[in-house]
Amino acid sequence: MIKNFLIIGCGLIGSSVLRTVSKKKIVKNIFVFEKSKLNISKIKKLKINLKIVKDLNKIIPKIDMVILCTPMSEYEKILVKINKFANKKILITDVGSTKAIFFKNIRAKLKKNISWVSSHPIAGSEVSGPEYGKSNLFHDKWCILISDKTTKKNLNFLIKFWKKLGSKVTIMDAKKHDTIFSMTSHLPHLVAYNLIKTATEFEKQKKYKLIKYSAGGLRDFSRIAASNEIMWRDIFFSNRENLSKSIDLFIKNLKSFKKDIRSKNNKLILKKLINAKKVRKKIIQLKQDINKPDFGRN
Amino acid sequence: MIKNFLIIGCGLIGSSVLRTVSKKKIVKNIFVFEKSKLNISKIKKLKINLKIVKDLNKIIPKIDMVILCTPMSEYEKILVKINKFANKKILITDVGSTKAIFFKNIRAKLKKNISWVSSHPIAGSEVSGPEYGKSNLFHDKWCILISDKTTKKNLNFLIKFWKKLGSKVTIMDAKKHDTIFSMTSHLPHLVAYNLIKTATEFEKQKKYKLIKYSAGGLRDFSRIAASNEIMWRDIFFSNRENLSKSIDLFIKNLKSFKKDIRSKNNKLILKKLINAKKVRKKIIQLKQDINKPDFGRN
Repeated sequence: MIKNFLIIGCGLIGSSVLRTVSKKKIVKNIFVFEKSKLNISKIKKLKINLKIVKDLNKIIPKIDMVILCTPMSEYEKILVKINKFANKKILITDVGSTKAIFFKNIRAKLKKNISWVSSHPIAGSEVSGPEYGKSNLFHDKWCILISDKTTKKNLNFLIKFWKKLGSKVTIMDAKKHDTIFSMTSHLPHLVAYNLIKTATEFEKQKKYKLIKYSAGGLRDFSRIAASNEIMWRDIFFSNRENLSKSIDLFIKNLKSFKKDIRSKNNKLILKKLINAKKVRKKIIQLKQDINKPDFGRN
Repeated sequence: MIKNFLIIGCGLIGSSVLRTVSKKKIVKNIFVFEKSKLNISKIKKLKINLKIVKDLNKIIPKIDMVILCTPMSEYEKILVKINKFANKKILITDVGSTKAIFFKNIRAKLKKNISWVSSHPIAGSEVSGPEYGKSNLFHDKWCILISDKTTKKNLNFLIKFWKKLGSKVTIMDAKKHDTIFSMTSHLPHLVAYNLIKTATEFEKQKKYKLIKYSAGGLRDFSRIAASNEIMWRDIFFSNRENLSKSIDLFIKNLKSFKKDIRSKNNKLILKKLINAKKVRKKIIQLKQDINKPDFGRN
């Protein structure tokens, strides 16, 4: 059992880790470092047995495992601090949505005996803050572990850790991870943000009140476009090379769609629409979404 | 009270009209014309007091009000038939998602005493077929009535009709309607279809299985990309001029987003992301979506 476990950054994901390790008794002592006073007061209300850490430098020497749940733009500062003050074998993980750039830019600055195995639990929501955390957030969700610059022993330790939290675990390298998620997550979010921006711009141009009619489709996009802006700025910036390529492919396909619509190419359009429907079925079969019309909204 | 009421096309929307007029006793006699034998057997199972019509030509002379709930590509054929066989004052409405092109192409072919007031209830789902209809589908949803080429008397009749079905009613002309819905509904659907197409193409190119990781955002788009292909082909083709302009604006904004990400323009990106979040709040305030994280999926 992990003796001294430190969560740095206790928002939606951090507080879900907190709730789960506490409920499932996965660690012995829980320490939480969180910058926001408001969040600290919310965490205290959870009545979980934990210690709020005020001075990271002092606590780090005692810690056996630390999980970074802050925005990715804070990783370097925190990891350099851990590197400086850890005086025993410490295992670091994080839950960031981009991987390659951080290994490239930060790993070289850390001592060799610092073990950092990066994790990416595919769980989240458009809401943020510790009050939205859930002890079943990771249940039956994928958690990707990154194989770069780690040992089999550490990787196995992390596999067990996430399985105890309820996740299904898979391993890949940082490059593959960033390529896949540029398409399954980062592009969809960017497209959603861009659609909302386009609609609001259009509303101003035309002077029509149109957001009130968003139930016809737009509302679905507004959900993921309501996600945390710091988190998503960090993702867009850190995975910008892959994301740029995904955007280019998306625009190429959109132009081809437009061409087929303008020329009323019945056969090609029907083929595209039917194929998209098949993917929805596959997504439900793969348990990536619930099988209820309209997401069971009503 | 409407004496003889005919529903032509009894899928998701038609069967929801059927259930609602029956439950709320809005009409005296209900007639249903539906081409699909499978759908007819599903409609019979609803145990609603109605008559299945086999020959449209014979029943039309008796009908007081008819509602078209077929794909829009069938409108012309049906309206010409109604025009030919109606020998008393008949009121026609439809539930199509595009308006201007049908008034332009079909209205001129109809007799002057044929009354056609077009409706667009903003209600629907990614599923189709009479089994998914609901008697509260229109409850508290917008229904747009089109003011072109109609009389105040007929418009008032339709306002009362949809209010009895539970809708909130608003009136606009066909041109304004098609402009607004190209942005709030048609573009979002096209973008969703295109995102799914891009992801499947990318999966083939890269030989990575990535649909299994779609919980990170892609899954949300797959829902509306699973909508009925005939209905959406008809919408894309019939509103192609407005849709083309919306696509162009969307691409222009996406390129600008890409540029700001590549240059890591912190201020501009944060502004864009924060503004998008405000729109989600507005959509919820306007009761266009439910106020539950993750659509209340879990």
